Amino acid sequence: MTKTNPGNFFEDFRLGQVIRHATPRTVTAGDVALYTALYGSRFAVQSSDAFAKAVGYPRSPVDDLLVFHIVFGKTVPDISLNAVANLGYADCRFIRPVFPGDTLSAQSEIIGLKETSSGKTGVVYVRSQGFNQSGDLVLSYIRWVMVRKRDEMSQVAEQSVPSLPEVVSVEEFGHALPQIAGKLWDDELAGSRARWDDYRIGERIDHVDGTTVEEAEHMLATRLYQNTAKVHFNQHSEGAGRFGRRLIYGGHVISIARALSFNGLGNGFHIAGINGGRHVAPLFAGGTVYAWSEILGREPLPRRDDVGALRVRTFATCDKPCAEFPGRSSQSYDEGVILDLDYWLLIPR
Amino acid sequence: MTKTNPGNFFEDFRLGQVIRHATPRTVTAGDVALYTALYGSRFAVQSSDAFAKAVGYPRSPVDDLLVFHIVFGKTVPDISLNAVANLGYADCRFIRPVFPGDTLSAQSEIIGLKETSSGKTGVVYVRSQGFNQSGDLVLSYIRWVMVRKRDEMSQVAEQSVPSLPEVVSVEEFGHALPQIAGKLWDDELAGSRARWDDYRIGERIDHVDGTTVEEAEHMLATRLYQNTAKVHFNQHSEGAGRFGRRLIYGGHVISIARALSFNGLGNGFHIAGINGGRHVAPLFAGGTVYAWSEILGREPLPRRDDVGALRVRTFATCDKPCAEFPGRSSQSYDEGVILDLDYWLLIPR
Amino acid sequence: MTKTNPGNFFEDFRLGQVIRHATPRTVTAGDVALYTALYGSRFAVQSSDAFAKAVGYPRSPVDDLLVFHIVFGKTVPDISLNAVANLGYADCRFIRPVFPGDTLSAQSEIIGLKETSSGKTGVVYVRSQGFNQSGDLVLSYIRWVMVRKRDEMSQVAEQSVPSLPEVVSVEEFGHALPQIAGKLWDDELAGSRARWDDYRIGERIDHVDGTTVEEAEHMLATRLYQNTAKVHFNQHSEGAGRFGRRLIYGGHVISIARALSFNGLGNGFHIAGINGGRHVAPLFAGGTVYAWSEILGREPLPRRDDVGALRVRTFATCDKPCAEFPGRSSQSYDEGVILDLDYWLLIPR
Repeated sequence: MTKTNPGNFFEDFRLGQVIRHATPRTVTAGDVALYTALYGSRFAVQSSDAFAKAVGYPRSPVDDLLVFHIVFGKTVPDISLNAVANLGYADCRFIRPVFPGDTLSAQSEIIGLKETSSGKTGVVYVRSQGFNQSGDLVLSYIRWVMVRKRDEMSQVAEQSVPSLPEVVSVEEFGHALPQIAGKLWDDELAGSRARWDDYRIGERIDHVDGTTVEEAEHMLATRLYQNTAKVHFNQHSEGAGRFGRRLIYGGHVISIARALSFNGLGNGFHIAGINGGRHVAPLFAGGTVYAWSEILGREPLPRRDDVGALRVRTFATCDKPCAEFPGRSSQSYDEGVILDLDYWLLIPR
Repeated sequence: MTKTNPGNFFEDFRLGQVIRHATPRTVTAGDVALYTALYGSRFAVQSSDAFAKAVGYPRSPVDDLLVFHIVFGKTVPDISLNAVANLGYADCRFIRPVFPGDTLSAQSEIIGLKETSSGKTGVVYVRSQGFNQSGDLVLSYIRWVMVRKRDEMSQVAEQSVPSLPEVVSVEEFGHALPQIAGKLWDDELAGSRARWDDYRIGERIDHVDGTTVEEAEHMLATRLYQNTAKVHFNQHSEGAGRFGRRLIYGGHVISIARALSFNGLGNGFHIAGINGGRHVAPLFAGGTVYAWSEILGREPLPRRDDVGALRVRTFATCDKPCAEFPGRSSQSYDEGVILDLDYWLLIPR
Repeated sequence: MTKTNPGNFFEDFRLGQVIRHATPRTVTAGDVALYTALYGSRFAVQSSDAFAKAVGYPRSPVDDLLVFHIVFGKTVPDISLNAVANLGYADCRFIRPVFPGDTLSAQSEIIGLKETSSGKTGVVYVRSQGFNQSGDLVLSYIRWVMVRKRDEMSQVAEQSVPSLPEVVSVEEFGHALPQIAGKLWDDELAGSRARWDDYRIGERIDHVDGTTVEEAEHMLATRLYQNTAKVHFNQHSEGAGRFGRRLIYGGHVISIARALSFNGLGNGFHIAGINGGRHVAPLFAGGTVYAWSEILGREPLPRRDDVGALRVRTFATCDKPCAEFPGRSSQSYDEGVILDLDYWLLIPR
């Protein structure tokens, strides 16, 4: 009996296959403190039980992205241990709040398989879902990854590429948060006077600040999420690899960009969904991350007028300040861009 | 509507102005664990619920300096985002204990404004205060910072320099702690046999140990305090700046010196107040911090005989052991000195 | 009255002497989160309250090695502040589970003293014990260290070398865990299908993964354990010392090896005892740790059939993958080996 996990190769997956992932994880105030130390996030709802209670939560919910990273981490040993590249995300929805003390577990369904033209790899599409200890769904998202084949000659039984929604519908939102008492929302304490009505489509916001990433930091983060992808941790093997460096977990960049975005989107307290995301270029330790955002859309939520949704596209860069909004021109990204993330933010009206 | 915070410039402040700062913060056992990991502090009251209960606390209070750093961090976006230098502290008093679960918020009053002779900057004096979720005052201190002017031609309406107490009176102390059951204070568990009566004025103590600071550590600490001062985080911009390096938050040095001081002041469980402090020189990653202390004063507390106050002056150095007590001679500091802190320590009698 | 702790020298110890160590420590969910961030451990019982409850625990117990490191850290100021080398461990038993909220304290008895032939040092044998806030024994182990003499001319009153058990008897085990509900043990969630019956004596398992250690990480860990040994923290003094580098706490290597061993020993949820251990070579920051294990023994536990014991020997290496099982041949260790640990693991049947 083989005791170690070699991970799945492309030909090991089957359409419709459901995988329950290992290592359920109780999220605690300790994780929340580490998340603060790693990113310096300042959104008041997640920072203060008193603020959260004042606006309608029973207490501070856990940061949406911390939930995402923990669920994502669980999928790695089964889905992406033999991945060449993480290609994209779609239809990501945060469905219920998670509070300290809740235990997260995860499962994935294989919803697409497509061999690449080289014959050496294939693209695996998975719908991954996170649940709390009561079995309630808290998070659902699709990602697709390019995975190596064990044997180039092998074939998968059936191939299929799923159709993916380009944008998550705002009809889906609103279950992950209580009715927000807007009148009790203290803009001074929250750190921003701008509410939903103050943003306009096409508006661009430079988040100004930059933060340099150290090896110890991204490894602490990625281990906190129990993400075991080898490329993040092993300088001895990566030193001889493609980049000669440890690769920083893409989710770490997302969390840095989100924390930076407080300066300009301070009242955007909840990520309701992620429409899509692309890690345009790898980040390595020593790089300084900057970010800017463009407002792509602005939608009221159905059947509630306490909060509205902003569709935001946030770009993160490495060693490039964002005063001139480096982004994507025609088919290519501007130099320095490392992340292109399209998501929905809820913000009080 | 401008969405990002440019910070206040000298001419934006007004005498008597009161600013409520953003981002209330619930302090948890997670923060306490991180504080231990960052400094290795060993004071028994803060380390052990069992010890704290035995001597009279309901449970372990949060380290005084952790409270200070969190409150300080909140003031940065409004007070010192455009600061050139942090000049000093005065009249700092720890007024109530803070326990895990408490939520801290902060406000500041502008108590002094004085343009400098260059006309490019001015000194801003603020009284900053931290409150718990019940609105009780837990911390109060004055600091003054040199802040850039936006426009050299601009004038402030009214200038004034406040008179600052040189020493916090021991009359002020004693409210931030319960009656300490000295007979149940276990010197072996506390790690020191020396009590209040064992120290004499003029006594000098070399704290012996040294600790080297890494970039990841001081950034984790400073983000834990949600302190957003750019100079601590951005190697890309600081590399082109005055020092070519990220500057370590001065409060990080204070906490290191306090943790080192356990070796010699192990029963000094509570900082009651800070009379003054000066960051004599900047610290950069890779430097090794040492510390020594001199006993400047020794006062009983009014109306209680369980604890006494020691006035302590602690010097921290970089890459310089303290066996020869490097300090201040006439007008200048000895080489290697980076911190000169004057404070009151409570210690069982 | 001397205020600082110079530590004990060889001639300061007496056979039969009992030392109560300083700084009791309440272990919290914050410590657990940091432990996860430092090592990325994935054992389900310690990771998930829900999993722990399902199999019979009231909630997740604290990782055995976190308990070990905290108790070990308390002994340092009294036992090994003047140590030249940490020579070995024996008869280590984890006797009761520790849960977040428990307060640990420690004491040691001197059970052996033997001057070395040089006359400059002596070997001190101690039985160290950790207790919870109720005074219950939770951990007991023997270690021996080579300690400097203050004065080469001095003599100790009485010398003696204790007889040490080569292996902890499985008769000792079983009190530190509830009856495990094997049928409710979910192998998928635990991340391994292999149970006690699936391992055979002589089996060798390469744990595959490797992890690179940074200065900030091992210092955060060692301070979390309030371990004050100077060699781990002070680059200014160590730079001029034997290795020119800060030495990484040996226990940090043990915890890394344990976390890596999840890949192959995923159901081995509890370390019941440590038979012996040797830090074969020092580890420095920048090194990448790998590990492999050999099954030395397989014993049922007396009076219970829910779990069985595996005697495991885990080797850790630096910058050397373990596919070829580098270990010990005749009298010497293979190149790259840094840890040789012999312990008992409990695993469901």
